[in-house]
Amino acid sequence: MRNRKILLSENEIPDKWYNIMADMPNKPLPPLNPGTMEPIGPEALAPLFPMALIEQEVSPEKWIEIPDEVRDIYTLWRPTPLYRAYGLEKVLDTPAKIYYKYEGGSPSGSHKPNTAVPQAYYSAKEGVKKITTETGAGQWGSALSFACNHFGMECDVYMVKVSYDSKPYRKIMMNTWGANVYASPTDRTEAGRKILAEHPDSPGSLGIAISEAIEMAAGDPETKYALGSVLNHVKLHQTIIGQEAVVQMEKAGDMPDIVIAPFGGGSNFAGLSFPFLQKNFTEGTKIRCIASEPASCPKLTRGVFRYDFGDTIGMTPLLPMYTLGHNFVPAPIHAGGLRYHGAGVIVSQLLKDGLIEAASHNNPEVFEAGITFARAEGIIPAPEATHGIATAVAEAKKCKEEGVSKTILFNLCGHGNFDMKAYQDYFEGKIEDHELTTDEINASLAELTTPEID
Amino acid sequence: MRNRKILLSENEIPDKWYNIMADMPNKPLPPLNPGTMEPIGPEALAPLFPMALIEQEVSPEKWIEIPDEVRDIYTLWRPTPLYRAYGLEKVLDTPAKIYYKYEGGSPSGSHKPNTAVPQAYYSAKEGVKKITTETGAGQWGSALSFACNHFGMECDVYMVKVSYDSKPYRKIMMNTWGANVYASPTDRTEAGRKILAEHPDSPGSLGIAISEAIEMAAGDPETKYALGSVLNHVKLHQTIIGQEAVVQMEKAGDMPDIVIAPFGGGSNFAGLSFPFLQKNFTEGTKIRCIASEPASCPKLTRGVFRYDFGDTIGMTPLLPMYTLGHNFVPAPIHAGGLRYHGAGVIVSQLLKDGLIEAASHNNPEVFEAGITFARAEGIIPAPEATHGIATAVAEAKKCKEEGVSKTILFNLCGHGNFDMKAYQDYFEGKIEDHELTTDEINASLAELTTPEID
Repeated sequence: MRNRKILLSENEIPDKWYNIMADMPNKPLPPLNPGTMEPIGPEALAPLFPMALIEQEVSPEKWIEIPDEVRDIYTLWRPTPLYRAYGLEKVLDTPAKIYYKYEGGSPSGSHKPNTAVPQAYYSAKEGVKKITTETGAGQWGSALSFACNHFGMECDVYMVKVSYDSKPYRKIMMNTWGANVYASPTDRTEAGRKILAEHPDSPGSLGIAISEAIEMAAGDPETKYALGSVLNHVKLHQTIIGQEAVVQMEKAGDMPDIVIAPFGGGSNFAGLSFPFLQKNFTEGTKIRCIASEPASCPKLTRGVFRYDFGDTIGMTPLLPMYTLGHNFVPAPIHAGGLRYHGAGVIVSQLLKDGLIEAASHNNPEVFEAGITFARAEGIIPAPEATHGIATAVAEAKKCKEEGVSKTILFNLCGHGNFDMKAYQDYFEGKIEDHELTTDEINASLAELTTPEID
Repeated sequence: MRNRKILLSENEIPDKWYNIMADMPNKPLPPLNPGTMEPIGPEALAPLFPMALIEQEVSPEKWIEIPDEVRDIYTLWRPTPLYRAYGLEKVLDTPAKIYYKYEGGSPSGSHKPNTAVPQAYYSAKEGVKKITTETGAGQWGSALSFACNHFGMECDVYMVKVSYDSKPYRKIMMNTWGANVYASPTDRTEAGRKILAEHPDSPGSLGIAISEAIEMAAGDPETKYALGSVLNHVKLHQTIIGQEAVVQMEKAGDMPDIVIAPFGGGSNFAGLSFPFLQKNFTEGTKIRCIASEPASCPKLTRGVFRYDFGDTIGMTPLLPMYTLGHNFVPAPIHAGGLRYHGAGVIVSQLLKDGLIEAASHNNPEVFEAGITFARAEGIIPAPEATHGIATAVAEAKKCKEEGVSKTILFNLCGHGNFDMKAYQDYFEGKIEDHELTTDEINASLAELTTPEID
C-alpha cells in the first residue's frame, strides 16, 4: 500500500523557532516614528506587548528556544501531517509531485494557534490578566481565545460588526473557550464611541477593531494586546510549520522545487517557506518560494515598496513594506485573512531582494481550485487556503505543458468548515472577480504621503 | 516532554474488519417477515444493497478482509490519533487515567466515512451508478457524499426538511462533494407526494426521508440504498476504530478498564468496543463497555427487548432489539445522530446477555461535559460525542470519590464545527432536560403489537 501521509512523533516537534533575520543578506530598514521620522526602538512597544515578545521582535539570534510549556500544548495537534496529494495529481494528470502540509487539525482549524499559544504563554508568565485583540473572519480571534483559556487569562475579542453578524458560529466558538466577543464598534472605547456618534449603523472595519483593542490594552497595565500576523515574532512562531515540513520531505526521500503558501500579512507564508529559504541561504539550494495573494489585494505583485502605516487609521510606526496604501479597502472577498493592504517587513525585504516570488489569482479561480481539491483529497479548504492551492495547480499544469516533473509543496493552512457560505456563493454564481485596474491601484497609491525608499 | 498522542503509521491500519458474531455466545434471533412472521433470508435485501454487503450482513466469519482500495482511501485520515486526556484529568482532579480516540479528523468530521467508503466501494464494483440515502443532522449524508464522489457515483441525499433549512452548511458540504441534496418530503417520490398532498408544509422526518430514499433505490436497478448505522455490516466496518485503539493502548503500555461510546443505532459504540469485547471473549479480560445514550431517547436503559420495526413507518423486517417503540418520537435534541427509537440487533443481544452496559445522561449534563472538555482539551465535540464524554466524566468522578485509579477510554466520534448553534443554545439557557417520565415510555410501548421475546 502506498503511503499518503508523512507523520512525525511528538518528540520531533521542533524545540527552537527559526529567526530568518539572522540569515538575510539585507536586513529590513528600521521602523520610523511618524512624528519625527526617526527610527524607533523596541521600548515603544512596551505598553502593548510583553517583554519576551518584544525581544523576539528585534532579536538577531538565529534560533530561539520554544518553552516546554508551549511545546506541551502544541502536542494537542502537532506535529501536523504532510500529505502526498495523489488524488490531486491524478485529477490534474500532471507529472508533478504535489505535497501539502495540513494545519487545519488544530483546535480552531488553522495555523493561527501556533503563535496564539506562545503569545498567551509569555503574557501569562509576565503577569498579564487579559489580552485584547481584533478579528475579522474569526480565525485569529478563535485561536487566541483557545490559547488564553489554556493559561487562565481573560480574552476580549473585538470582532468587526459585519463579521459578528454574518459569522455567528465563529463567535460561539470563541465563547465556548471562554472569551468575550464584542461587535466592533462598541461603546466600550473612545474610538468606538466616536465612530458610533458619527455612524450609529457602522458595519465596523479591521482598522476600527484594532483601535478599540489597542485602546483597551494601553489603558490597563494588566492587559496586553496581541496580533495574529505581520509582526516578526508572529512569523517566527509559525516557522515550526516549515521546520516540520523539511524533516517530512526528507523522510519522503524528496525535496520541493517549489514551496507555496497563501499571503495575507505574511505569517502563513513565512511559516512554511522560511525553513526552506534557510536551506537556500546555508546549503545553496534553489527552492522557489511563492506567496499567493488575491488579485483583489495584490500588494506583492502590484503594490510599491515604501514606508507605510501598518493599520488603516495611522496609529502604528511607519514600516518599510510592499503596500497598496493604508487607505486601500480590499473588496469583500471571503478570504478575510488575506484582506490586508501591506506585507510584513521581512517578507517585503525578501521580495525586494528577489529571494522570493509572488503570484496572484482571481476569486473564481481560487474557488475552482478549492472544489477540485475537496473532491480529490477530501478536505474542504478555507478560502484563504484555496489561494495556495490555485498556485500549486497552476505550477502543476505548467509541468504538464512543459513535460517536466517538479516537486511542489503548499501550505493547506486551514479547513473551510466555518466558510461554507463562501462555497454556497460559488455554487450560486455569486463569486465575483474583483481584479483591480491600474487606475484603481494608482489612485490608492497617489494618496500616500509617507516616505519613499530608494 | 510527556507524550499526549499515540499515533500509528499507515501500514498499521487494520487489514481486516472484526465480526463479533463469530464470538458471541448467543447469536441474535433472526429477522422476521412482518407479514408471515417467518424468518427472512438475505435475498430480501437484494433490491436495496449490493451483494458484497448482504454477505457481510449475515457472515459467520470472524475476520473479513478490507480491500486495498478501501484502505488506500482510509489513509486520507486514518489511523486516527489516540489521546491521553491530560487536560481533562487535571480539571477533574481525578486519579483515573482518561484516553480518547478521535474520529473527527475525517473529511466530513466524524466516524461515518469508515463505513461510507466501503459501502460506496462495493456498490461501484457491482456497477451501481447512484446511491440514495437519508440524513438528519447531516453527518451521514456528508460522509456518503464524500465516498460516492471518490468512486465516481452519483449520490442523492434526502435531508429532513427542518434540518435542510436549519443546517445549510451541511447541505453545502454535500454539494461541494458533488451530491444532490433534496429537502424531504419532495415531489420526486410517491411517498413524498403523498405526504405533501396531506401536509404541504411538512417539516419532514427521518422516517419519511428513509421512505423516499428506499423508493428511489428500489425502482432502479442501477441505484442502491445505503444506511449509516444499525445494520451488522455498518458495525463491522466501524471496528477499525477499536482495532486501532487496542494497538494504541498496548503501545501506551496500558489497557482500559472501561470503554465508552455514544449510542444512536450502535455503529459508533460497536466500532470502539467490539475489539475490546473480543479480548473479553478470547483472553478472559473483564473490560466494561458502556453505551452512552440521551435520557430523552433511552432505549437501552429504559426500553424493552422485543421484535420491532427498524423504521418509523414499518417498511423493514421485524428485528429483535431494545426499543422504545417504532412510533416513539424523540425530543428535538441537538444530538440528531442519537435520536433513534431502537438499537441494532447485535448490541441488543449483547446487552440482553449482560456483556455490555448502558448509561444515560440528560441534555444540560452532556453540554456541561462538552464545554469542560473543549476548554481542557481544545477540540469542541459534536453533541453526539458529548454523551460519551459525560459517561467518562461520571466514571472519573467515581474514581475520585472511591480513591481508585481506573483507565477510561472513550470515542470522541466527531467535532462540533457544524453544531455551534447547539452551544449557542446552551449559553442562552435554551438546552432543556427532556428526561422521560415512566408514563411516557409506557404509553409508547403500549402501542406495540409486534412479537414479544421470552
